[in-house]
Amino acid sequence: MNSVFTGEHESENEGCLRSPVAAIATAPGAAGIAVVRISGEGALAIADKLCPGAKVPPSELPAGSFRLARLRDPRDGSAIDEALVLVFRAPRSYTGEDVVEFQTHGGRAAPSRVLDALLALGAAPAGPGEFTRRAFLNGRVALDRAEAVMDLVSAQGDRAARAAAEQLSGALGRRVDAIWENLLALCADLEATLDFTDEEAEGLAAPIRFDERAAAIAGSLRDLASTARTGRLLREGALVVLSGPPNAGKSTLFNRLLGERRAIVAPEAGTTRDSLEETLILGGIPVRLVDTAGLREAGSAVEREGVERARDLAARADLVLALRPAGEAPDDCAFARPSGPKTLFVETKADLMTDDRETTRPRDHETRGAVPPLRVSAVTGEGIAELEEAILAALGTDPAAGEGGVAVSERHAALLREAAASVDEARAIFEDGAEAVAVPAADRLRDAAESLARITGRSYTESLLDAVFGRFCVGK
Amino acid sequence: MNSVFTGEHESENEGCLRSPVAAIATAPGAAGIAVVRISGEGALAIADKLCPGAKVPPSELPAGSFRLARLRDPRDGSAIDEALVLVFRAPRSYTGEDVVEFQTHGGRAAPSRVLDALLALGAAPAGPGEFTRRAFLNGRVALDRAEAVMDLVSAQGDRAARAAAEQLSGALGRRVDAIWENLLALCADLEATLDFTDEEAEGLAAPIRFDERAAAIAGSLRDLASTARTGRLLREGALVVLSGPPNAGKSTLFNRLLGERRAIVAPEAGTTRDSLEETLILGGIPVRLVDTAGLREAGSAVEREGVERARDLAARADLVLALRPAGEAPDDCAFARPSGPKTLFVETKADLMTDDRETTRPRDHETRGAVPPLRVSAVTGEGIAELEEAILAALGTDPAAGEGGVAVSERHAALLREAAASVDEARAIFEDGAEAVAVPAADRLRDAAESLARITGRSYTESLLDAVFGRFCVGK
Repeated sequence: MNSVFTGEHESENEGCLRSPVAAIATAPGAAGIAVVRISGEGALAIADKLCPGAKVPPSELPAGSFRLARLRDPRDGSAIDEALVLVFRAPRSYTGEDVVEFQTHGGRAAPSRVLDALLALGAAPAGPGEFTRRAFLNGRVALDRAEAVMDLVSAQGDRAARAAAEQLSGALGRRVDAIWENLLALCADLEATLDFTDEEAEGLAAPIRFDERAAAIAGSLRDLASTARTGRLLREGALVVLSGPPNAGKSTLFNRLLGERRAIVAPEAGTTRDSLEETLILGGIPVRLVDTAGLREAGSAVEREGVERARDLAARADLVLALRPAGEAPDDCAFARPSGPKTLFVETKADLMTDDRETTRPRDHETRGAVPPLRVSAVTGEGIAELEEAILAALGTDPAAGEGGVAVSERHAALLREAAASVDEARAIFEDGAEAVAVPAADRLRDAAESLARITGRSYTESLLDAVFGRFCVGK
Repeated sequence: MNSVFTGEHESENEGCLRSPVAAIATAPGAAGIAVVRISGEGALAIADKLCPGAKVPPSELPAGSFRLARLRDPRDGSAIDEALVLVFRAPRSYTGEDVVEFQTHGGRAAPSRVLDALLALGAAPAGPGEFTRRAFLNGRVALDRAEAVMDLVSAQGDRAARAAAEQLSGALGRRVDAIWENLLALCADLEATLDFTDEEAEGLAAPIRFDERAAAIAGSLRDLASTARTGRLLREGALVVLSGPPNAGKSTLFNRLLGERRAIVAPEAGTTRDSLEETLILGGIPVRLVDTAGLREAGSAVEREGVERARDLAARADLVLALRPAGEAPDDCAFARPSGPKTLFVETKADLMTDDRETTRPRDHETRGAVPPLRVSAVTGEGIAELEEAILAALGTDPAAGEGGVAVSERHAALLREAAASVDEARAIFEDGAEAVAVPAADRLRDAAESLARITGRSYTESLLDAVFGRFCVGK
């Protein structure tokens, strides 16, 4: 049996004492509290030098305890701050190494001076995700849970946060492990047949119910992979584009949909100010709402480029809201009938409708077999709640976000599909019924297990870790 | 002897159990760590409800210890995050009350969900500075040290941070207390004379050296008050305005002075992008550098307003740099000779100077009796270091920032000057030599002590506290 089933790591890093790294672990800005963290060999001794007057130096504090200490710059003895000093001893720390955290006053100055002193005392600046990477290398956290940390930190919507919290608590790992156990059992049963002659082994295939079990495993893998769509919407948000002719009420609806929600939108530097894009949280999902008005109404000189950009946006959108004023005939503008993504037809300015116009409204959707257009008024609020529901329904997010709140990432989905394909290959080999099927079929099952092992990090490569932890922020 | 000398508080709040308040205490943004804090009656019981599966609930943890716990929303049992839970028991906490801190993963979601759960469990949202205000009311921190917390949090420059750290460690309080002791001793000696007849008392004035001691006290008070100028520069930064005719090289010098320093400038939302103002840290002091170029060169229609704004800026400036190209005759532009603030004359484009022009350079500064202009080149860097030194010298910041690194705030300075004036009044009463001078003179000394008491908060009013803590951020 190879290393995948014994859980041995490919890395040579494990167990070695790593040199100390330090970073500010809280976000910058004026605030009550900031935290500076140091992890690695000698972290406690370095911390002692920052607290020269402490009755009990950090290195003598019991693990899991903290004390208030007056921090001084060891280079000139000047006061830095009064700080809480938290002591963690290897292996019972976030990284699995000796760790000291300094909880200073917030703002720029105090944490910067603490970090500066730590670097002067021999710590290196921690790279992005370096603390979590060390945690993984020291076996403190599985890879899928480390990834959940990053998802949680960057979660915009409530549902993304919940899904990340579930994954952090091991929900994905448990499902992957359950499939892994089934793979392992099937592989063991298959290899047991090797002790028999081919004729005997063929007779054994029926009792171990190979195909039935393999098909169930492949199905579980594909089910789990299918949560990736919801996972992507939770993590990255949905792109929803407003399109329609000038004066269709796009900007008014844009502002109405944002409404008071604008206040709870996560701040993102710069971008939203400069463009007609805003993010709102709808049903716990971040929705990037883009108003293409500016593009459409551009002067003729730049109009072609504008149309091109709008087309491009619509093509990449998860959903297009095609607007036109209620009671007006649909124009044949390209935006009104995008062919690629899903489209919701919306009739705006419902408040301006007269009964007269109502009766003569061209019922074009009937000719297309599409759902009837939603009718809304950004002024009276009529139909807005229905529109929000329709947007969520059209985005097709599974309200349960997969069993146990699991919604996998693209990385996980690719590995799950790869594993399912390997299991299918094993089934095909078995079905062929050629001689000595057990050995190649077991090989395919091991391939599947290897793919799964890369989800939880039982098996990994340095480049895989670089890809995973490169997304992290410094200080995590 | 009145309450000022016994240190009794005027407030009726002390000692009562306050209802729990909670807030996120770290700055918003994607980061490794965030901290949510709850303080007040029942904080521990509320914390227990957030950690339903904890082996040891927070309320049973020893003070000064922390544990990793899985936080769950008590309303629906959903996972929130894995967090460190820090337990502080009254009175040994920041606020002097029972306090629990939850160190969650950073970002928006996890701390928001924790706060949300705490509020649902009965905590109220903490107002700005409420934790520190409670710390003061519970006698955990003197008012001058509470103010230092705010200074430290908002410190932009290194020197401001150091001054705040010194004040936080009690440097200002120790100096104020020393003066207070002298006042107390003098007052006691003075009141001792009341047991004697006027004739005897007059004879006693010499032995107690009243005037000498009172004059020394007034001098100490005014010395301390004089550090307010440096204090203001450290806290608010200096406003330095570049002025001069078009093409004097203002923008080039502006960018040269900012240079690589731009990277270490504290981020301030919006303002700097939209205007020609940038902050750099010069000798540990934040310097707000303003380029008036755009104003001066405005078209004739808006020129009057532009000139007005430039005049206004120059009038408010701590320093004006009046620029003109080396070798050119000074024009009579209003900016070149502002009458109000200090001005440094700077000759730019020194690299373009020829020996020929050098000799014919009008030495206008001699006729004015001013210091000779500094000659700089933003291209070669010539004279830039000297200019930076000259700016610091002209701003008149005391490099020692007062004895023991103390640089008081405007609030402190006003109280110190008030105290000095009271002491002077006492001296004047004594000098008059009228009958029964001891009683009114002692009254004046007590007035002085009362002023000092408001610095450290031995004596305070609610409105004083509102003024001090209203500057704080939420979560401090």
